[in-house]
Amino acid sequence: MRRWNGWGDETFNLAMPEQGHDFLASKIGTGRPLTNATLESVCATVPETRLTPGPELDALIDTSPEARVRHARGQSLADWLAMRSGDYGVFPDAVAYPSSNQDVRKLLAWAAEQKINLIPYGGGTSVAGHINPVDNGTPVLTVDLGKMNRLMDLDTDSQIATFGAGTPGPLVESQLRAHGFTLGHFPQSFELSTIGGWVASRSSGQQSLRYGRIEQLFAGGRIETLQGTLTLPTFPASSAGPDIREMVLGSEGRIGLITEVKVRITRLPEHESFHVVFFPDWETARTASRKLVQNRTQLSMLRLSNAMETETQLALAGHPRLIGMLERYLSLRGAGTGKCMMTFGVTGSHRQCRNALLEARSICKAHKGVYTGTRLGDKWAAKRFSMPYLREALWQMGYAVDTLETATDWDNVDNLSGLIETSLREGLKDKQENTHVFTHLSHFYSQGCSIYTTYVFRVGDSYDETLARWQRLKTSTSELIVNNRGTISHQHGVGKDHAPYLPVEKGELGMLAIRSLCNTFDPDAILNPKTLVE
Amino acid sequence: MRRWNGWGDETFNLAMPEQGHDFLASKIGTGRPLTNATLESVCATVPETRLTPGPELDALIDTSPEARVRHARGQSLADWLAMRSGDYGVFPDAVAYPSSNQDVRKLLAWAAEQKINLIPYGGGTSVAGHINPVDNGTPVLTVDLGKMNRLMDLDTDSQIATFGAGTPGPLVESQLRAHGFTLGHFPQSFELSTIGGWVASRSSGQQSLRYGRIEQLFAGGRIETLQGTLTLPTFPASSAGPDIREMVLGSEGRIGLITEVKVRITRLPEHESFHVVFFPDWETARTASRKLVQNRTQLSMLRLSNAMETETQLALAGHPRLIGMLERYLSLRGAGTGKCMMTFGVTGSHRQCRNALLEARSICKAHKGVYTGTRLGDKWAAKRFSMPYLREALWQMGYAVDTLETATDWDNVDNLSGLIETSLREGLKDKQENTHVFTHLSHFYSQGCSIYTTYVFRVGDSYDETLARWQRLKTSTSELIVNNRGTISHQHGVGKDHAPYLPVEKGELGMLAIRSLCNTFDPDAILNPKTLVE
Repeated sequence: MRRWNGWGDETFNLAMPEQGHDFLASKIGTGRPLTNATLESVCATVPETRLTPGPELDALIDTSPEARVRHARGQSLADWLAMRSGDYGVFPDAVAYPSSNQDVRKLLAWAAEQKINLIPYGGGTSVAGHINPVDNGTPVLTVDLGKMNRLMDLDTDSQIATFGAGTPGPLVESQLRAHGFTLGHFPQSFELSTIGGWVASRSSGQQSLRYGRIEQLFAGGRIETLQGTLTLPTFPASSAGPDIREMVLGSEGRIGLITEVKVRITRLPEHESFHVVFFPDWETARTASRKLVQNRTQLSMLRLSNAMETETQLALAGHPRLIGMLERYLSLRGAGTGKCMMTFGVTGSHRQCRNALLEARSICKAHKGVYTGTRLGDKWAAKRFSMPYLREALWQMGYAVDTLETATDWDNVDNLSGLIETSLREGLKDKQENTHVFTHLSHFYSQGCSIYTTYVFRVGDSYDETLARWQRLKTSTSELIVNNRGTISHQHGVGKDHAPYLPVEKGELGMLAIRSLCNTFDPDAILNPKTLVE
Repeated sequence: MRRWNGWGDETFNLAMPEQGHDFLASKIGTGRPLTNATLESVCATVPETRLTPGPELDALIDTSPEARVRHARGQSLADWLAMRSGDYGVFPDAVAYPSSNQDVRKLLAWAAEQKINLIPYGGGTSVAGHINPVDNGTPVLTVDLGKMNRLMDLDTDSQIATFGAGTPGPLVESQLRAHGFTLGHFPQSFELSTIGGWVASRSSGQQSLRYGRIEQLFAGGRIETLQGTLTLPTFPASSAGPDIREMVLGSEGRIGLITEVKVRITRLPEHESFHVVFFPDWETARTASRKLVQNRTQLSMLRLSNAMETETQLALAGHPRLIGMLERYLSLRGAGTGKCMMTFGVTGSHRQCRNALLEARSICKAHKGVYTGTRLGDKWAAKRFSMPYLREALWQMGYAVDTLETATDWDNVDNLSGLIETSLREGLKDKQENTHVFTHLSHFYSQGCSIYTTYVFRVGDSYDETLARWQRLKTSTSELIVNNRGTISHQHGVGKDHAPYLPVEKGELGMLAIRSLCNTFDPDAILNPKTLVE
């Protein structure tokens, strides 16, 4: 069953190898775990619901404390601390489980009539507070779209598939694979996040280099709004005015509930493999990455770890003897201390993969890259969705872990990633606490790339102190990002946590346009308040 | 000098080979040309201007009849007939030539104060009535951005170039080529159309398969609006809410005047070549095209002519002896009557081109394609921007020519292109007139493609009769397109001519969103009235 207070399936635990433990202790000291609240104790704190659905809606709606607890929070570190402490603050008044567009329309009508805030809920994997109810005096109904999870239509000629918006990653892929297709959208949250959530929050997957971001995959669909049904027909491309799809993408529940998503799919590839190259230093590694993408080499994924992430990953990999041999070999070939690990994937026809691999190896070699084959790449592929489980293992050891991500143009990548790392590394210094910080670049464009920084710090003596540590790091670094040409999010959306920083990025007139869009569809501000726009 | 009443440079004329003449006469009869108005006679019909700029604006503004004539119309067939008959109907009251953002802001302030309609003017190449003034009782100022035509900034690391919005295609490319870069945006209007116009109307170029549509190339920029300056910062990608860039793309002058455009550029390729393959019939040719694009073969352009376009192109090519030899060869190889011509381009590194060519030839061969090398491809490349000049040659012979274009999903391509061709071919039957109709597919996506249909008919005994013939064909076929899953435009925008059909495509709520966007930036409806939204 799904873990009620953390990530993923509760029967699955990722073990932390002993060297990992030692490594972290050497960096930031030994952690002292805090005590976790129990589901029962949290359920006991859930207040009486303010909603009485009445006979027509009763079958759709669950007002039980457990359902309300399970839909109150996402996966941000603040959410995690709330779930672990039991100090939730606000719960939705009820959870609805619609099975059809008609059900959703009924819920919208009820919300409009009774002035109820509606929060659309896909996989509940937001790390930016998208699905958290706010305490504004209005009753809250969370709408879980999990029952709308079917492949509804498949056009194999046009390669378009229609899904219920609540379909999670594994069900998207398994239903497509049965017909020989893939969507190719693999965010780290793949196991739980849904196709509707991807659209609502402008998600990007690990293989976006081949398949594109959700913006490129989203072909059309259906959105139930308070003004009626918004239908987005599919066209391969159009110059007929502003693109309504692009107003739905990233709308985060503010203009309506996405119920059906049409996506562009691809035949399953003949071949796919993942390869690892080590570079002697950051400069050569970053330059090689930029050259690879600006050269339009047909890669399907690319990830570049900085020296500290490379060191951390090798330390946490287990198999110290094998890793030791690898490091001695790399050192002989020029990639010693300060080395950076690049992982890249090739996907497609045999010919395409063969040539992409040759081209990639040749560019890497020109920048002193040492190619090590597919062994570490296979490991990356095997563990690509399991990283969120690591949070649980670290938590048990008394460590809190979170990530910050942005994207910026190439000329600013070093500057911005340096600022972010320093801000996080120094952020708790006056508390005599160290933060362990490392970064990778993971989504590449000719213009620039995403910067994904992980930071680990010891939990405080109390939940309040731990939350204060996180807030300080998150706030100062988020400000720094938007003030230094970074987007407040490359792949996680705005939610409530990033909303304060959005105006710097969009500007006064950009915010005017977004507010006007929300207001057009939802003049009474019923849908997902405080999300996207404060 | 630029032709005042047609396309391009007035010293350049495309000769129609004799066989072309005979071919058309056999299809639709011999034409009887109409008499053209002179520039002098048209200037004499221009009414007194309703605008008095005053000393501060005087230097920016030209109220001369000739300037007003030269900015009154675009390049639609209706525009063409107006220019040839001299029956313009409406002229702008003046033409402004700003050199800076500050100039543009002054013009906006004046327009707001005096309630003057502003029309942004790039290259004046619209084929959908974007820049035509309307007769609504309000004075009209056309703002020609032609002086803002410089490369303002070049970031070679991030591969982003900043241009003044009025920079035309050749000046975009020449300024970039001097630094070893290309934008790669080559619409047929390349010679005259501008980078700001491409953004405003969501243009697509002939090599969009490699470089993307203008949506993918447009990285940010500056738009002067009545509410202030809208600055779009550059990010490689972002999930931070709805994308304001996508509201500017296709805004057609309704939310402001685009003054600076930042675009994603590419290093000049090592190699580029264009190749031609003939297929025995439409079915094999269309299937091969779909396979090529769904296979992600790295082509830079792809164009597929149907049997009638293939026949017409070969007839109009001149060199009847060479063409005869080619046709006999093709016939022996199985591509006789009904054959369809595919042109494709490969662009990039030598390795990429070699492999793309191998892959393309292999897919074509599997669908009975007969590869003929680069000779006809070179011809296509040499003439790629000269086709609009053909209109002049045909006009002199008494023929009117126009095109209609759309895009639709693969499962609907044959249905919709058949409907369009029949509608045009039969449209003047009750007048005992034939229309010569042929089609190519020219922009390819995994999901579908564009359909580009050319139609030629004899001019009537009068301009009024000729306009009536065109209106009948345009209206009935446009209705048919939007009612049969086609977009009203894949690459030419909405303007005034397509505005009546937009609501079918966008739906009631889509139109609500677009209207609300226009209204947010321009509550008094001062900018480019009747364009995009009626």
